[in-house]
Order: sequence, then structure tokens, then C-alpha cells
Amino acid sequence: MNNSKDADDISHWWRTSIIDMAPGKIEFRGHPIQDLIGNVSFPQMIWLMVKGNLPSESEAKLFECALVAGVDHGPQAPSIAAARMAATCGLGLNNVMATGVNMLGDVHGGAGEQCAELYIDIAARIDSGESLIDAVRSGLDAWRAEYGKIVSGFGHRFHKPVDPRAPRLMALVRETAEAGTVSGRFADIGEAVQEELGVQRGNRPIAMNIDGATAVIFCELGFPAPLSRGLFCLSRSVGVLAHGWEQMQQGGRNKGPMPPRFLPKYEATQEQ
Amino acid sequence: MNNSKDADDISHWWRTSIIDMAPGKIEFRGHPIQDLIGNVSFPQMIWLMVKGNLPSESEAKLFECALVAGVDHGPQAPSIAAARMAATCGLGLNNVMATGVNMLGDVHGGAGEQCAELYIDIAARIDSGESLIDAVRSGLDAWRAEYGKIVSGFGHRFHKPVDPRAPRLMALVRETAEAGTVSGRFADIGEAVQEELGVQRGNRPIAMNIDGATAVIFCELGFPAPLSRGLFCLSRSVGVLAHGWEQMQQGGRNKGPMPPRFLPKYEATQEQ
Amino acid sequence: MNNSKDADDISHWWRTSIIDMAPGKIEFRGHPIQDLIGNVSFPQMIWLMVKGNLPSESEAKLFECALVAGVDHGPQAPSIAAARMAATCGLGLNNVMATGVNMLGDVHGGAGEQCAELYIDIAARIDSGESLIDAVRSGLDAWRAEYGKIVSGFGHRFHKPVDPRAPRLMALVRETAEAGTVSGRFADIGEAVQEELGVQRGNRPIAMNIDGATAVIFCELGFPAPLSRGLFCLSRSVGVLAHGWEQMQQGGRNKGPMPPRFLPKYEATQEQ
Amino acid sequence: MNNSKDADDISHWWRTSIIDMAPGKIEFRGHPIQDLIGNVSFPQMIWLMVKGNLPSESEAKLFECALVAGVDHGPQAPSIAAARMAATCGLGLNNVMATGVNMLGDVHGGAGEQCAELYIDIAARIDSGESLIDAVRSGLDAWRAEYGKIVSGFGHRFHKPVDPRAPRLMALVRETAEAGTVSGRFADIGEAVQEELGVQRGNRPIAMNIDGATAVIFCELGFPAPLSRGLFCLSRSVGVLAHGWEQMQQGGRNKGPMPPRFLPKYEATQEQ
Repeated sequence: MNNSKDADDISHWWRTSIIDMAPGKIEFRGHPIQDLIGNVSFPQMIWLMVKGNLPSESEAKLFECALVAGVDHGPQAPSIAAARMAATCGLGLNNVMATGVNMLGDVHGGAGEQCAELYIDIAARIDSGESLIDAVRSGLDAWRAEYGKIVSGFGHRFHKPVDPRAPRLMALVRETAEAGTVSGRFADIGEAVQEELGVQRGNRPIAMNIDGATAVIFCELGFPAPLSRGLFCLSRSVGVLAHGWEQMQQGGRNKGPMPPRFLPKYEATQEQ
Repeated sequence: MNNSKDADDISHWWRTSIIDMAPGKIEFRGHPIQDLIGNVSFPQMIWLMVKGNLPSESEAKLFECALVAGVDHGPQAPSIAAARMAATCGLGLNNVMATGVNMLGDVHGGAGEQCAELYIDIAARIDSGESLIDAVRSGLDAWRAEYGKIVSGFGHRFHKPVDPRAPRLMALVRETAEAGTVSGRFADIGEAVQEELGVQRGNRPIAMNIDGATAVIFCELGFPAPLSRGLFCLSRSVGVLAHGWEQMQQGGRNKGPMPPRFLPKYEATQEQ
Repeated sequence: MNNSKDADDISHWWRTSIIDMAPGKIEFRGHPIQDLIGNVSFPQMIWLMVKGNLPSESEAKLFECALVAGVDHGPQAPSIAAARMAATCGLGLNNVMATGVNMLGDVHGGAGEQCAELYIDIAARIDSGESLIDAVRSGLDAWRAEYGKIVSGFGHRFHKPVDPRAPRLMALVRETAEAGTVSGRFADIGEAVQEELGVQRGNRPIAMNIDGATAVIFCELGFPAPLSRGLFCLSRSVGVLAHGWEQMQQGGRNKGPMPPRFLPKYEATQEQ
Repeated sequence: MNNSKDADDISHWWRTSIIDMAPGKIEFRGHPIQDLIGNVSFPQMIWLMVKGNLPSESEAKLFECALVAGVDHGPQAPSIAAARMAATCGLGLNNVMATGVNMLGDVHGGAGEQCAELYIDIAARIDSGESLIDAVRSGLDAWRAEYGKIVSGFGHRFHKPVDPRAPRLMALVRETAEAGTVSGRFADIGEAVQEELGVQRGNRPIAMNIDGATAVIFCELGFPAPLSRGLFCLSRSVGVLAHGWEQMQQGGRNKGPMPPRFLPKYEATQEQ
């Protein structure tokens, strides 16, 4: 390859620590691809790519639980509905998947990220000497000043009283902590937040939802907050793909949100 | 829930065999989510969602190899470059991932699908009584009549003479076939196509690339051709996420394809 | 700027005839931007950018009619529904618009392109000596061999018997042809196709729809077939924006395709 | 149509004031489409769709200037580069356009929105009794507390000392204000912000850029701040389409950000 200043600048513009390539050579984070294929699990590969090191098997096992838990929540989720509609518009599965994933914005995909921010902030407050309960209260105050009253990761408009994914995930975090793989401190923090929220609602318990539980896992495993969103998107991509493919097999052309015989209601305004 | 004709029609419009929900209940293909979390691997979950049944561990193991193999091919791939640029434009990781995955169209993401179509067609020709070599030749003719001269799944503009992922994957297919998990017929077909292509180029061998090898795996495991594209998109989403996240940490605003001091070359035309 | 071979190669990799830039200078197709602003209409600017020259005012006027006609078809269109749902997911208007436009694939956005291909092919057959009716018949045969029985640009599943946009557009094409701005040959071709389709359906007339009519306009004005898709996407972007914005003002979070009290119907399969 | 409670709920879920449809009938904001086609300009149609009323011709003329000004800034813009790369990946123009527009996030497409927020806030401060200069100073303080030091709409990393679009647009705003079509108050505010920023930089003048100038126009015309982003996306869609189409004609497959002979620089980290 050329070594001019220009060539160096160009190469450096696209510098990466993820992949090293030459003809016949592909290495990820220093590991030749042929050594990874067949030897590491898909979750381990995801971890290696995103975080830079290979996790132990027990770390990967807990990580995998979070990936399994978030794959889908059905066609009432806008991301899934949009993907299914896209599948009837003559698009490839790549475009179908992109359509669905694109919609996992602050309101949905961002919930895990925002919840992880809260947990990490509370942990920092504890490290600075606050008690757990004080850190939870001051962390919640600070978080709400930025994001508003409703705390991401808790409560569910549909799954009442309990989101079946959260208690299962939390039990697995506790098992993994007992085995010494993770510390369990974010499980403590998550449950303390849950309890405090219940108290603040006049002692009406509130459930932890999937975002609250997977954020505990991703924090226990050392992932920065934005990756709670990214990893959720990866997980939900599975459901997007499954639904897009199912819709392709069901057929349909230009599928709208409701059967064609229904029409949107027109509401005249005075602006006309 | 309401049982009017209208309500039934609406529900039916969004019918699915993937997920069954009620408050507190999430079941995928008949399996409660809490039974899946911690008990099935992420590749098994992907398979369940997309294909409808739970694979055996050895099936899942081969499936996983294909998912691991395709995660990334670096920033020279347009999907990765676009994702990294998107990460500097003030988008969330969901939008970054969508931007990258959207670009895995017919030319890239579609290669595995087209290659799987070829393999499946050759298999059907064999089932109709043709010999392997005849089926390969007539299959190639038919395929080229639709898609053109260059056969997807073989050759690589960068990895010469060998794409390091393909031989490793093929060795694992052979191992899995010996263990009786898969039949090995698509491995035979893939290698026969590869050999025939070499003969047709005047006895200059051509390498199988990652699309050719993963298509063998997905066909061995019974996935329809379009899922070779969909599953590749899922795999490549990992690299898109990893690169988008790395770029976010490197920083930058409105990152273009080359350092700002370079300008695109303007070529005046006569149309003005 | 640097003039090394590397720098030249880089600049050439991104060569363009559309825009010429230097600090303080932006020229499109040879026209300084400050001369265009305030002096050319938005449709003229679109034409200049896409086609390379500035249209006359009467050309731009007809062009504008096609852009106005296609802006929206309401929330039953999957692109509009998806954009509205996206607007409740915490995305910016750019992501909302991308979500909608992405869905204008072969089935919807591609209809105009496919119809233009038919018209242009028929025109070529006439240029080769066939009569209009023979060219229409052979053109339809060839088109159907590639795209199937249903001819894009004709018939409408909702607007029966008439799509109100098409006759208005065709009248304007005829006016423009009488004024000598366009030839009117594609209007002839479009109407001959429409008539032949009616005959082939057992003398049951079929309406021309918006795709059939705008394809006539884009062909009259010399746009290649794929731009019938591209220009439609530009036009429909207006509706996508308007609906996304209206939804943002209506509010809602994670808006699904139907009110939350309705659930998709779960259909168990035997695969489980 | 059905009038059950369910049917009403469904229709109401997708209520809109933009479009009223029945077979053979399409009306936008109360205007039949056939009356709009050929009678309103494309900018008037955009305004009608987004804002709800028909603008006067002089309002539409100023509006049009902003739409013309923002169409493109060349392949060094990530949105344009991504669209051009997408065009070589086997995607339709709809997907190409979506890829480009999706990237117009907070850093790029959001600049106009943020600048409009600043202007509107300053106007509100003036309405509350502050002087122009006090309102500018306190408005800038409040804005920076939310968005950081660099004020959107001013300065340009490439166009130094002057962005050629801004002075032309501002001159047209002043002309339009003199004619009584707009008040000119946002032109005053924009220029006062520009001057104050120069003072704050130690009396080094700073240029207004296209976002600063188009935000003036959109504010003068009464558009809410988020539409400065949306309308910019509409305008830039033109350049995205033009570049995607030019790239399709140039050809290429899987075009990366730089010629294939250059490779990204691999930087090993210690994490491995």
C-alpha cells in the first residue's frame, strides 16, 4: 500500500481497533476469524466485537439471557408493525429489518439506555459515600430533572402486575452473582429503585419491566449505558426479522394498519 | 376483549404464529418466555423465532458458526462506513444500525440469498433425476439467465486466493454431516458448483466466499433462501453496532467519507 | 489542495457533475447558488439537480403538477402509517421521513417506474416501425413476462371507478402538448394501454391511476424510468412529513397499528 | 362503513385533518386534489400539507427560496456519501433516499431546528418586555445551557468567511418584509444574534450559515421550530436523489468510502 501523507491520512480517517484485514486475513480484536468460528458462541462474538475482549462462559451466559429476553413483543409494537407492513411493499429483508430497528428510538430502544444511566449514576453516588437509599433518592431526582416523571425500566402499560421477563432475569442475575461472576450491586440498585418508586406512589408496588432488568444485566457486565440501547436493538432485530418473514409468507400488498374497509377519521379544522 | 366482527377483523389483520400475549403472559411458538430465558441459547432463540421450532444443540451449533462468521468486514464495506458516519450525525444507535442494515441490498446482503436459490434449485434437479454435475451445469445456466454471469457466493475482490471464513465453515459442515446432524448434500452441491466454475474459467480455481459457505449451512439446516439474506443481516448487525459505537467514542461531527481537506472532483458536463 | 496520485484518486472516487464547491462558492451544474435562490422555482431546482439542465417555465409547470399530485394518500398507506408510528417513538423528523420513504418499494414507489418502462418500451417499438396498437400489445406481453399480470399504473383498489388525480393530470398533459411544450406521444401511449387493458378484460374499462398518469408526464419530459420512482418519493415525502408532524402534535407514545385494547390474533401452528 | 364502537375506535386511532378520502375523492385540508393540481405551486402544496392553509404567492415565494437553498452540499456531507454508496448496493431509489435523509440528525438536520428555537425564544423575551440586545444575550445563555457553546446557524467549517447562501436569503427576507408580507422581526433577531456572537468572540465577525438563514425564513413565515428540520430534510432530499441517481449511472458495486486499494488503519488496543 501507498505510504504518502495523503494515503496515511485517508487510512487514519477510517481507523479501527475492531478489525484487521489483508487479503486472506480477517482478525477481530486480534483473533483470526477462523479461530473464532466454531469456538466462540454468538453472544461471545457480540461481546468481543462491541466490548473488545472475550467474556468468560459464565459472563456470556448471563449476557445471552438478556439477548434472548428482548427479541419480540408482537405486532402492537410499532417497530414490528412497521416491519410487517414494509414486507408487503416489495422490499428486501434488509430494508424490512432497517425499517423496524430505525423505530427503536428514545421512547422504546432508549428506555434501557436511560435506565442504565440511572443505575450507573446511583452506583457513582454510592462510591462517593452515599447510602444506597440516599443514592437512589438523589439519583431519581437528578434523572427526573432530565427525563421527566416516568422512570424508564419500571411499570408496563400492558403487563400488569408483572412483566414475566423481569423476575426471571433478576433471578438469573442473582444466581450469577452468587457464583461470583458479577457483583450483584446493580441488582441491588435496580431493586432499591423499584422499591422506592413503589413507596413514592403511595406504597403501591410497581413492577420492573424488561428494560429495567436487562439494564441491570448490562450494567453488571460493564457495558456503558448507550449499549443497553444498542444491544436491545440487536435482540429485537430477531423479532423484526421473524415477523417480516412471517408477513412475507402471509402475503399482502401495501398492507395498511387496518383492513382496507376501515378509513381514518377525517377531522376538519378551522385553518382551511 | 371485544368480539364484534370489526374487532375480530382487526385482530385477524395482525394475526401471527410467533407470539401469544396476554397481561403477564408472553409465549413464543408455544413456549413461555420465562422458560426460554436461561434455557435456550441466543442462536436457538433466533431459530425458534424465524423457523418455528427449537433446534437440537448440534443444529444450533452449526447455525451459530454462520452467525459468528458474518459479523463484519470493516469500514470499506458501505454498510459499515455509512453506520460510522451516521454515528457522528447526532443519531441514536438504533438509527445508526438501521442505516447500516438498510444497505445490505441485493448486491451484498442478497448474495447469500441468490446463492441459496442456486443450491436449492440444483438439489431439486437432482431430486428430479439429474446427476450432480448435470444439475450443477443446468442450475448455473438457469441462475445466470436470471442474475447474470457472476455467480454469487464465489470469488472475492479482496480475499485472494482464499476467503479465510469459507474453508473453516465448510470443514464444520462436514464434521456436522459426519455426526449425522445434517445430510451434507448442500456441501456437495456447493463444492461441485465451485469446481465447475473453476473449470468454466479455463481451469482457474475460484474460491468460495462467505456467502457461498453460509448459504450451504442455511440450506443444510432447512432455511428458505430469503432467510440467507435475513440471517446475514442479523449477523452483520453486530459489526454495524460495534463500528457505530467505536465511532461514537472516537467522536467527530458530520464525518464525511474522507478528511475534510479533500474535495470531490467536479466534472463539468455539457448539459448545463 | 494536494495533487499527489493518492489525493487525485480520492477526489476522483467521489467525482460529481452536480456540485462544484470551494470556500464561499457553491455552484450547481454551473450555476452559482446565489443566482438560483429567488430566481428559479423549487420544481426547476429539482429538475436542474436531477436532470442537469434548467427547464423552461412551461416544462416546469407540467413537472410541478406531477409533484403536487403525489404528495399523500392517507394513513392507510403503509408508508404514512409507519411514519406516524415512528413519530411517537422519540425520533427526529428526519428519521420519521426516512422510515416512510424507505417503504416506497417495488410495490408502491416502483409502480411508476415500471409503468414508465412499459411506456418507453412501447415508444421504442413504435420507433422501430410498429403501429401504436401493435406496440402496445407486444409491449404489454413483454412487460408481463417480467412483472406479472397486473399492469402498474392502471386500476386502483380503492378509487373506483376513477382515481381523481389521473384525468386532471392527463388534461394538463394534453394542454401542454397543444402548446408545443411536449409531444403528447406518451399521453397517446398511456391512453392506448388503458384502452387495450379494458379490451383484454372483456371490454370492462379500467382507470388510469396516479402512477400511470405521472409516468406519462415524466416520460413526456424526458426523465428515465427509475426517476419516476425517485420523483414520486420526493413528492410523497411531503405527505410523510405532514403526517409525521401532525402525529407529533397529537402525541402518543409507541403508537401501534390499532388501539391498545385490540390484540393480534395468535394462530398456533403445528411446528411447535 | 361500519359504525360499531370498534370501527369508530379504529378510525379514530388514525384520525387526521390532512386528508379526507372516499372512493373517487381525495381532499387535502378541504381542497379537492383535482383543484390543487395545476393551480397551486409545489411549495404552496407543501405549505398546505404541513401548515394547514394555503399561503399567498408572496409567502410561497419566500418559502420557496429556503427550499431551493438547501438542496445539496456535495458528497463530503455524510448523508450524500451514504446515499451514493447505497445506490451501489442494489437498492431502489426509495431506499437510497431514506438512507440519506435518515442521517440528517441533530448534528445536521437539527441545526435549523435548534436555531429556530433560539430565535423564537428571543422573540418571546422581547414580547415580555426585554430589549433586543438583552433578549439576544439572555436567549443565548439559555440556549447554550441546553445545547452547548457552539450556536447552531452561525459559522461554517468550510465556507469561510461567508456562506454564499445566507446573505442572498437574508436580502430576500428584507425585500419580502419591505413588501409587507412578513414582519422582518426574525431577520432583526438573526442579525442581532450574529453580531452578538462576533462581539463575544472578541470582535471577530462570524458568518450566518444556511441553517441560520433558513430558520429566519421559517420563523418569519410562522413555522414551529421542528419544521425547520423537517423542511430542510425535504429540501435536502433533492440532493440525495440527484446524487443517488448520478451514482447509479456511474455504476460501481458496494462502493466504499475510498478506493479499494486503501485500507482502514488498524490500531491494536490493549483490551485484547
